[in-house]
Amino acid sequence: MKLPSKNDIEIAYNLIKDLVKHTPIFTSSTLNNMFDTKLFFKCENFQKVGAFKFRGACNAILNTDKDNLKNGVATHSSGNHAQALSLAAKILNIKSYIVMPNNSPKVKINAVKGYGAEITFCEPTLSARESTLNQIVEQTKAEFIHPYNNFFVVCGQGTASLELLNEINDLDIIITPVGGGGLLSGTLIYSKNFNPKIKVYAAEPFGADDAFRSIKSQIIQLSINPKTICDGLLTSLGDLTYNIINNYIDEILLVEDHYTIEAMKLIWERMKIIVEPSASITLGAVIKYNETFKNKKVGLILSGGNVDIANINYFN
Amino acid sequence: MKLPSKNDIEIAYNLIKDLVKHTPIFTSSTLNNMFDTKLFFKCENFQKVGAFKFRGACNAILNTDKDNLKNGVATHSSGNHAQALSLAAKILNIKSYIVMPNNSPKVKINAVKGYGAEITFCEPTLSARESTLNQIVEQTKAEFIHPYNNFFVVCGQGTASLELLNEINDLDIIITPVGGGGLLSGTLIYSKNFNPKIKVYAAEPFGADDAFRSIKSQIIQLSINPKTICDGLLTSLGDLTYNIINNYIDEILLVEDHYTIEAMKLIWERMKIIVEPSASITLGAVIKYNETFKNKKVGLILSGGNVDIANINYFN
Repeated sequence: MKLPSKNDIEIAYNLIKDLVKHTPIFTSSTLNNMFDTKLFFKCENFQKVGAFKFRGACNAILNTDKDNLKNGVATHSSGNHAQALSLAAKILNIKSYIVMPNNSPKVKINAVKGYGAEITFCEPTLSARESTLNQIVEQTKAEFIHPYNNFFVVCGQGTASLELLNEINDLDIIITPVGGGGLLSGTLIYSKNFNPKIKVYAAEPFGADDAFRSIKSQIIQLSINPKTICDGLLTSLGDLTYNIINNYIDEILLVEDHYTIEAMKLIWERMKIIVEPSASITLGAVIKYNETFKNKKVGLILSGGNVDIANINYFN
Repeated sequence: MKLPSKNDIEIAYNLIKDLVKHTPIFTSSTLNNMFDTKLFFKCENFQKVGAFKFRGACNAILNTDKDNLKNGVATHSSGNHAQALSLAAKILNIKSYIVMPNNSPKVKINAVKGYGAEITFCEPTLSARESTLNQIVEQTKAEFIHPYNNFFVVCGQGTASLELLNEINDLDIIITPVGGGGLLSGTLIYSKNFNPKIKVYAAEPFGADDAFRSIKSQIIQLSINPKTICDGLLTSLGDLTYNIINNYIDEILLVEDHYTIEAMKLIWERMKIIVEPSASITLGAVIKYNETFKNKKVGLILSGGNVDIANINYFN
């Protein structure tokens, strides 16, 4: 299996840099004092569609053979990848087909519709999602873009670390969340080849610890009935992401939801930015394992900011 | 009465620029498309203490005679000015005395305490606040720093526009909220002397329309029983701010709370940043008076981001 290299991520960056947002890096002296560390937050919550996923979607489409793109792109997703792929397709003038479970939040359905995707609803099970997608791909001949187990998606996600390290080049540690492993894989490849001394930790929900178990048992463990508020971190690793993570990872840190909630409150309240639980878990890891991070320069990738504002009591 | 000049604001900027945060300017293509305009948001919600007030507090302290500062500074406030003055005093190694109404939100009391201020509680009426403050000032000989009706506070607040216009120098319009008028006054002086063609509009809550009535009747009208969610915009103008506003203002736009809520939702959801209602009212004005802003380059000063996160249902 061919794994991406640092150079593949640099190529991806040059390809997508005019499409994606160069997101800012935020710091907070309050949080630094609180945890006796220096934190650098890469704000992918400000990325287009509100999540890093837009990077990988753009890169995957731009690396697909033009002849194959005539028929559009397709995926199944109830979350940020659906929005990312449909917006990237819209910008690049390509048709997109998205299979969404029929219990997807209305706000996400509307966003995907707004980007002009053709939506097909299915039962909210993995097998229904896959079989519906297969039908769509068969009918339309559209190109399936996997949300994370895809060479070019991984390279695209790695460009967040490229931007981070080009700006702050003396980080001791980088933390990313891990769900399917696309962001973590891209981060590992770029950072470890940028400077092998940088430690890369993944933050994984205690109640969705399949990546932790996979690395421990040296075989992909499935995520079955995961229980966590981190709704972006429910999926299992793929073979590509498993291999990359297994090659490079320093440690997967399991984080209970109460640390993630505490982290999310701190980020909202002190930094005045909106992040989703799946992003806040990175600071949750700093709270839980504070000793590991003391007096270090730590990059945290705030992966996204898509929370359902309608559910927030403030507005009711 | 001596009004500040553009040069006074430039002097203030040089004095405070290493203490205050140079806040970023955000844009949103979604909002621009939605309202057919180009919006530039000056993010004072990212300012220290979460509001522009820190600028004025720093400048006021730095312009007070050193002999007078020996005894510290004092003010009465339940809100952002209390935090701003106490943090500025702490950084500059000066004692601070804050009179707070006994019904102030705990989160604000704790913040002021955290900055090392000495708090005196009083009944939540203006007369109790003023008489308690007078006692404190008499006992301590501390220097009273008014939250807005103060020459140097106005100059400090004007530095937000200085930063905005130095970065985006071809704005057609600037909008700020108006409460006591400190931010609006500083904005007017800087912007109108930077380029007299720039229109400056104030956004004022429909249910707290004393500034609107003051300019109309050409005499300061008091804010009596104001009704609005914009808790930072409840106060009346002072004689200094009234005079500046009356000299320079293009128009005060009254904005009903439902526009402000709509605006706040849009900013949270689309821009992923936390702003308080008193800041969101600027976008509320763009929503209500959309025609006025079409095809213009509009600067909006997002004055603050202090909402009580504990009250947000998401976390309960």
